Amino acid sequence: MITSQEYRQRLLKMRRNVYMDGSLIGRDDPRMEGAVNIIAKTYDIVTDPNLEEYGDVLTATSHLTGGKINRFCNIHRSVADLLAKQKMTRIACHQVGGCIGRCMGIDATNANSVVSYEADQKYGTEYHKRFENWLRDFQENDRSACCAQTDVKGNRPWRPHEQLDPDLYVHRVETLSDGIVIRGAKVHNSYAPVVEWIPVIPTRRLVEDEGDWAVSCVVPSDAEGVKLIVSAAQINTHKNLGTPGPYGGADSLTVFDNVFVPWEHVFLNGEYELGGRLALLFALYHRHSYTGCKPAMTDVLMGASALMAECNGIEGKSHVGDKLAEMICTAELCYGTGIAAGINGEKSASGTYIPDIVYCNVSRRHAGINIYHEFDILADIAGGMPATLPREGDWENEETRPYLEKYMMRNPKVSVEDQHRAFRWVQDISCSDMAGVTQYAGVHGGGSPRMEQIAILGSYNMEKVKNIAKRLAGIPIKEKYSCDRLGTIPKL
Amino acid sequence: MITSQEYRQRLLKMRRNVYMDGSLIGRDDPRMEGAVNIIAKTYDIVTDPNLEEYGDVLTATSHLTGGKINRFCNIHRSVADLLAKQKMTRIACHQVGGCIGRCMGIDATNANSVVSYEADQKYGTEYHKRFENWLRDFQENDRSACCAQTDVKGNRPWRPHEQLDPDLYVHRVETLSDGIVIRGAKVHNSYAPVVEWIPVIPTRRLVEDEGDWAVSCVVPSDAEGVKLIVSAAQINTHKNLGTPGPYGGADSLTVFDNVFVPWEHVFLNGEYELGGRLALLFALYHRHSYTGCKPAMTDVLMGASALMAECNGIEGKSHVGDKLAEMICTAELCYGTGIAAGINGEKSASGTYIPDIVYCNVSRRHAGINIYHEFDILADIAGGMPATLPREGDWENEETRPYLEKYMMRNPKVSVEDQHRAFRWVQDISCSDMAGVTQYAGVHGGGSPRMEQIAILGSYNMEKVKNIAKRLAGIPIKEKYSCDRLGTIPKL
Amino acid sequence: MITSQEYRQRLLKMRRNVYMDGSLIGRDDPRMEGAVNIIAKTYDIVTDPNLEEYGDVLTATSHLTGGKINRFCNIHRSVADLLAKQKMTRIACHQVGGCIGRCMGIDATNANSVVSYEADQKYGTEYHKRFENWLRDFQENDRSACCAQTDVKGNRPWRPHEQLDPDLYVHRVETLSDGIVIRGAKVHNSYAPVVEWIPVIPTRRLVEDEGDWAVSCVVPSDAEGVKLIVSAAQINTHKNLGTPGPYGGADSLTVFDNVFVPWEHVFLNGEYELGGRLALLFALYHRHSYTGCKPAMTDVLMGASALMAECNGIEGKSHVGDKLAEMICTAELCYGTGIAAGINGEKSASGTYIPDIVYCNVSRRHAGINIYHEFDILADIAGGMPATLPREGDWENEETRPYLEKYMMRNPKVSVEDQHRAFRWVQDISCSDMAGVTQYAGVHGGGSPRMEQIAILGSYNMEKVKNIAKRLAGIPIKEKYSCDRLGTIPKL
Amino acid sequence: MITSQEYRQRLLKMRRNVYMDGSLIGRDDPRMEGAVNIIAKTYDIVTDPNLEEYGDVLTATSHLTGGKINRFCNIHRSVADLLAKQKMTRIACHQVGGCIGRCMGIDATNANSVVSYEADQKYGTEYHKRFENWLRDFQENDRSACCAQTDVKGNRPWRPHEQLDPDLYVHRVETLSDGIVIRGAKVHNSYAPVVEWIPVIPTRRLVEDEGDWAVSCVVPSDAEGVKLIVSAAQINTHKNLGTPGPYGGADSLTVFDNVFVPWEHVFLNGEYELGGRLALLFALYHRHSYTGCKPAMTDVLMGASALMAECNGIEGKSHVGDKLAEMICTAELCYGTGIAAGINGEKSASGTYIPDIVYCNVSRRHAGINIYHEFDILADIAGGMPATLPREGDWENEETRPYLEKYMMRNPKVSVEDQHRAFRWVQDISCSDMAGVTQYAGVHGGGSPRMEQIAILGSYNMEKVKNIAKRLAGIPIKEKYSCDRLGTIPKL
Repeated sequence: MITSQEYRQRLLKMRRNVYMDGSLIGRDDPRMEGAVNIIAKTYDIVTDPNLEEYGDVLTATSHLTGGKINRFCNIHRSVADLLAKQKMTRIACHQVGGCIGRCMGIDATNANSVVSYEADQKYGTEYHKRFENWLRDFQENDRSACCAQTDVKGNRPWRPHEQLDPDLYVHRVETLSDGIVIRGAKVHNSYAPVVEWIPVIPTRRLVEDEGDWAVSCVVPSDAEGVKLIVSAAQINTHKNLGTPGPYGGADSLTVFDNVFVPWEHVFLNGEYELGGRLALLFALYHRHSYTGCKPAMTDVLMGASALMAECNGIEGKSHVGDKLAEMICTAELCYGTGIAAGINGEKSASGTYIPDIVYCNVSRRHAGINIYHEFDILADIAGGMPATLPREGDWENEETRPYLEKYMMRNPKVSVEDQHRAFRWVQDISCSDMAGVTQYAGVHGGGSPRMEQIAILGSYNMEKVKNIAKRLAGIPIKEKYSCDRLGTIPKL
Repeated sequence: MITSQEYRQRLLKMRRNVYMDGSLIGRDDPRMEGAVNIIAKTYDIVTDPNLEEYGDVLTATSHLTGGKINRFCNIHRSVADLLAKQKMTRIACHQVGGCIGRCMGIDATNANSVVSYEADQKYGTEYHKRFENWLRDFQENDRSACCAQTDVKGNRPWRPHEQLDPDLYVHRVETLSDGIVIRGAKVHNSYAPVVEWIPVIPTRRLVEDEGDWAVSCVVPSDAEGVKLIVSAAQINTHKNLGTPGPYGGADSLTVFDNVFVPWEHVFLNGEYELGGRLALLFALYHRHSYTGCKPAMTDVLMGASALMAECNGIEGKSHVGDKLAEMICTAELCYGTGIAAGINGEKSASGTYIPDIVYCNVSRRHAGINIYHEFDILADIAGGMPATLPREGDWENEETRPYLEKYMMRNPKVSVEDQHRAFRWVQDISCSDMAGVTQYAGVHGGGSPRMEQIAILGSYNMEKVKNIAKRLAGIPIKEKYSCDRLGTIPKL
Repeated sequence: MITSQEYRQRLLKMRRNVYMDGSLIGRDDPRMEGAVNIIAKTYDIVTDPNLEEYGDVLTATSHLTGGKINRFCNIHRSVADLLAKQKMTRIACHQVGGCIGRCMGIDATNANSVVSYEADQKYGTEYHKRFENWLRDFQENDRSACCAQTDVKGNRPWRPHEQLDPDLYVHRVETLSDGIVIRGAKVHNSYAPVVEWIPVIPTRRLVEDEGDWAVSCVVPSDAEGVKLIVSAAQINTHKNLGTPGPYGGADSLTVFDNVFVPWEHVFLNGEYELGGRLALLFALYHRHSYTGCKPAMTDVLMGASALMAECNGIEGKSHVGDKLAEMICTAELCYGTGIAAGINGEKSASGTYIPDIVYCNVSRRHAGINIYHEFDILADIAGGMPATLPREGDWENEETRPYLEKYMMRNPKVSVEDQHRAFRWVQDISCSDMAGVTQYAGVHGGGSPRMEQIAILGSYNMEKVKNIAKRLAGIPIKEKYSCDRLGTIPKL
Repeated sequence: MITSQEYRQRLLKMRRNVYMDGSLIGRDDPRMEGAVNIIAKTYDIVTDPNLEEYGDVLTATSHLTGGKINRFCNIHRSVADLLAKQKMTRIACHQVGGCIGRCMGIDATNANSVVSYEADQKYGTEYHKRFENWLRDFQENDRSACCAQTDVKGNRPWRPHEQLDPDLYVHRVETLSDGIVIRGAKVHNSYAPVVEWIPVIPTRRLVEDEGDWAVSCVVPSDAEGVKLIVSAAQINTHKNLGTPGPYGGADSLTVFDNVFVPWEHVFLNGEYELGGRLALLFALYHRHSYTGCKPAMTDVLMGASALMAECNGIEGKSHVGDKLAEMICTAELCYGTGIAAGINGEKSASGTYIPDIVYCNVSRRHAGINIYHEFDILADIAGGMPATLPREGDWENEETRPYLEKYMMRNPKVSVEDQHRAFRWVQDISCSDMAGVTQYAGVHGGGSPRMEQIAILGSYNMEKVKNIAKRLAGIPIKEKYSCDRLGTIPKL
């Protein structure tokens, strides 16, 4: 495992292919600092004395080498691995107050591990061997990755091969002797500029004519032809408040302008039905990640709300308790259902474990339909101050500082300084462009509630449920009683 | 294990102490048939060929005798037992289309197993030995039980010992050489007239002056001095529709008019702090039962909704899918979180396992706040027909039957007869006094959402959550990072 | 105006054509008493000294004769009439604790007054003259009416003329020299057996081929060929509790088995586009009625909740206030928006006023999506007692009565007797088949929320709203600013 | 009436007393431009040819002088005035896409007009004469005003006179021969730096000992001793997109550091009970303003959602219709209930009309509890693009522009340029610090939903509602039927 310092140095050595607001910028551009700090944190937590007791959760043992690795590089080989990954995610997100960024990499990697194996079984290809070779380096060198899934998609009602411009979904444009060439662009490609590898996978089910779009591969973030047009947001860039960070995100419109991918990095190449399988499986793993990160996000908003209640001196009020209880319920319904997803995980042919699809999706959906409401609760308890708080400079201006200190005073048990810190931070997380990014990500990241609904309805056996009703109504049915949603009881 | 036939015979032998609507009635009164059928079903499922594949779930192995027992008599000795009990509950409720009745008994029994042991450890009493003696007979003879917990409570803002009449909470009125005498009344004592044993336990935390109210014991349902004033409701009492059942409930205002309880049936006797512990622990076990039965209730309403959509020919409609997805999410969030409650269960000193308090409570609360909405969805999809459906007699009247058959026709793929069955049954479950009972029980059974909120807030470490926020806000804190809600990873 | 006594006598003179549960019954059958009492109340309120101050609201002046009439017979000739009708509805519903029954008649009559006039203008027919002749008798003799709108509809996705059986929508089967013959059946035909007239109108938009289904007429409730197959529910049939009523509903599957309608009672006959217009216009008037009756229903549930809080001694609790406030908001948003519907009402060519379509529909929809939640609130505040309350007979049984009186005691400021009355009545309205009927009616009566959504989206100019957005986004648009939803400012 | 040019010139002449982020700034500081443009728009709309048809609404006739004035300076002398003010507010907000800023002035002025008169009646003072003198200039010179109401409030559970520092509520510190001196600070003092007058009024009910805090007066925004520490946010500061604006807000922590107020500007001075009356009355008028501005805000978010649906090519989708219908309902329930508030307005002793308190509060509360949900809907329909949209500079960079144009393509009916404008603007309004300000303002502006709940419960006669229930339950009551919420029927 490497240190965050080594991670940062790797970034500095990368080819300059990041664009922001009209300029070609370095990966050390100050506007990227928040995103870099997030990924850096995934290296730091492993050795953080503050997190000592969670060591077994934050690291894992490689099934390839037996070596100790950062769990963000691990392939889930057991139910316990699924549970540990969920747990790690909640812990890590707590440290940065939101998205931990590196989960896309682990999710894409696990999905590839399953599907490359299935392809080999079906077609006699050698994708899985390639994948494992790549994985060995990935694990040993503690590399970071994101996932480029969401195509720009052009006109929504049209399929990939129906678009006026075939590039609106990333696709194979040429097959060479030593690899393939791909073209297109992926949006919402979070953290792409601050990781080393970009796995590229399909975004949807594909039909037979769409083999060119059924490509899975990994591409270095600074590969020739890759251009990252980035939108970044970050918070906590304060001077004298002692806040950690800054932390933030960097979302890329990642252009693949005729990018060459050598065979050793190609894990699917035309198997259209497995392309769709891979798309859905990444989504599933990623929604499983959300069973960890969304409860953490709720914890952050809940902690912020409790802190606001303390500052406002209304901690004991009945309506405050009502609202905190709501937040607890959102967090624990999502997290608890995520545990059920792990417990009911199943071993795929490759030996990689896959979490339960219904539990992952109901959990992610529940989080997604509640995110704005959680911000609502925070705003409700905080009062208007986060929206109208004078700026930091006014706390440093000798003329205005005394007024602020005099009039900021609320609960006498909290110092004015801490009140300032508390309201400033709540402003950062709830009244800023970063807040907006968090809200949108809360709805759409990993697939919006509507996507989860489709997955849920698609995987739920409604006929069996209807049979329960029919039997009770006296309508004759032939089938024996059966229910798919009773869960497994693991041998403990 | 006994057959339902034997169970029914036992009922017939009991002393007549059941009152309904002005009369002293037998336990075979037709109005009680629905409740009797429910408990009878808990005996039948064990041998039902339809449920063969669930045999391991529906039975258990007694930790006292090693014998095979109905799981409704089992003490949970492992996480697997907790998971199996939840699973059994969902299966059993599916068979009767609602409450399975016998869970109160298992929940009270498990709670007594924990607290009687703790009392002995603390006070050197021998409650646990008594309890195990009683339990041996209970398991070997496959006895049924309910639980008398909710006192009538008089004026809500007053504590037990502050009431004008001390009997408003059941309490010990005399101590004799061979036992104690209790007096008072319990409400909402579901299924009391159709079971053999009534465990009697406190309803709330008690203070030092309230030792007389800190009594735990078991009383035969037909014991001298016990009077059951019963309100019953049932559905499916049709002539020619081929429906199973009738199924229903029987709720008793159970009066203990100076009831003598011999020592061997007394499991707490004045230990006020353990009285409160027992009250809360029964509630916890019972809410754990709800993680099985409430998803089953949702399944029934969901199946009914899907059946109505089929009858109405609107199965593929987008808004129908939206609503069924909502129901799936309610069911699976509750059930999944119940699994997490089992997985995170802990072994008490007695060896009995206790499910996680937060997961049980968020699951039960989520069910409780959604029950009316689920009826709303059913009504929405069904249309007005369940409310205005002509009565069964009109289907038998030669003059009106042809009209009904002609005009009832909807989706041509469903026969008129099945349409009739479907709408009649949906009327039964959603537009009847039984529907009202189910709605009230959905809110209050096992403790209303407000009670769960209190349990959740009382057991959640909000300071640790606030510390996550403080660290991010730059507010100095001494404590190391810690989070209580990460869950255990069982050795699998 | 007539007395309720005269109304009851008229019912007794009617031909026997009502069927219930297998028998042909009289309109004085005890099971119909609740519905009869409801309509009777609409006669009584006009002279009720208790309602003296509302006299101007409950009566009106006929625009035909200048005579004083019951407002339930009035044609709205002004905005003030629309407001008065809404007000009357809320008052009347308060008296019976729910649906007042006679509004269908006024709504169908007003809709006919508008459309018969439009037909005459367009086609030179004389429907409006016929209508006014009929109306004169209707007003002078203070007749009652319902409205038969909802056809049985067969397979939902098919249009009337596409059904396998053309009778699945009521239609004209023959044209004679002196009138027409109609056949088919209407469902959910509330109060049909307890009124004198049944207006028959189309249930949906019609296309050119569907002239036979474009019929509007009025038929005596006991006309030859009319058969009423009735489902009835009622509450408050107590012996010693001093409750008013009983009150209830009677919903009919009304069969028109080749019913002859003379020309003077035919108000549309084949004008398909006006058939659709009439269907929607009745729905609009009826939703306007709901802006009065649904707030009244909320008032009843709110009063019940407040009464339960009093009995339980929790009136001052914060969560009780939260819930009552929610109910107030539901009632007043619906009622207030109904006022806006009246204020923005428009005069049709006939001189009859039509309320604003968007306000009527948002009000009705808001009520419809909240009805189950209101029952939820009542159950929540009441606790489980309404579901498990021992029956009335047990209060009369000397053996059990003392127990009930002793243990029913709650808030010492409320007598046990009044507690009994309060819980019994709440049981009646929330835990009975009548409760189910109210819930279904709350969702579907007057059109379900989905129907209102269709009406709202169909009548809202979204392009104008989008133009507001486009202008702000800098997207060039040609249109001047305009907004349809600003409301009129009446000359006051 | 003046032009916006004249308004801007007045600002330039004011004393420099505005602080932002550490500096003393001019009112023409670029960061203030958004707020200035908002107020400027209130002058422009009066002559905007685009708004010609609304001329009667946007202007009024002074009851003092008979002159034509901007309606933002008007005293409501009729129900029609109340309706026109609500209408004007919705129109004006549509022009700037949010808060129109100048309503605080009209609301404070109307509240002062009522209470100064009541004070004179009760105490023989001459506040109302002073007020009318001041008003004459205000109207004739078309002056702008805000309202300084919300005190910093210190420790929430303590009353003004209980605070450790009496200045935590603005209060009179000295009485001189020619006026009074006040000290303290007001927060959330929106638009204070960009208006001419700051009315200062109490923030809550006061008790007898709190006469010093019972002060109402008007203070020039640049008066000696007034210091405005400002937090500003604004959107639409684009280069090449052709957007109007920028528009934004400027919220001030307004410090009154021993500010002298001459007698002619003092409208209350120690009458504690009228201080509370004034506080509540301003809140009422302001909530009435919200019945106009919140529907406008919903219109903007609804228009944005519809625009996003168009860009994404999903306009006809069922779930999009569902969500737009929800927004329509929110807008129209609030606006419709606001109409009812106007129609049921009452004339105060001063002749000024006061809108109905319940309708204003249920409307404002309904808006407040839905604001975050509306942003949720917008995000849901928009997809993630507003959160990750590359920045404007990248559209001008020749290297990246072709990629953006190629890959931004969605619905082929919308040009790429307009897609860019649409997503940029939606980013502005939903994913920016300004979005956060709008969300907080949506919850708290004019009083948070909790405040409205208190007002609603405080003014609703629950006993009368309970009496409806009691009568139906057979519980004897003496009172005649009566209901306070039936509404007036205006003479039309």
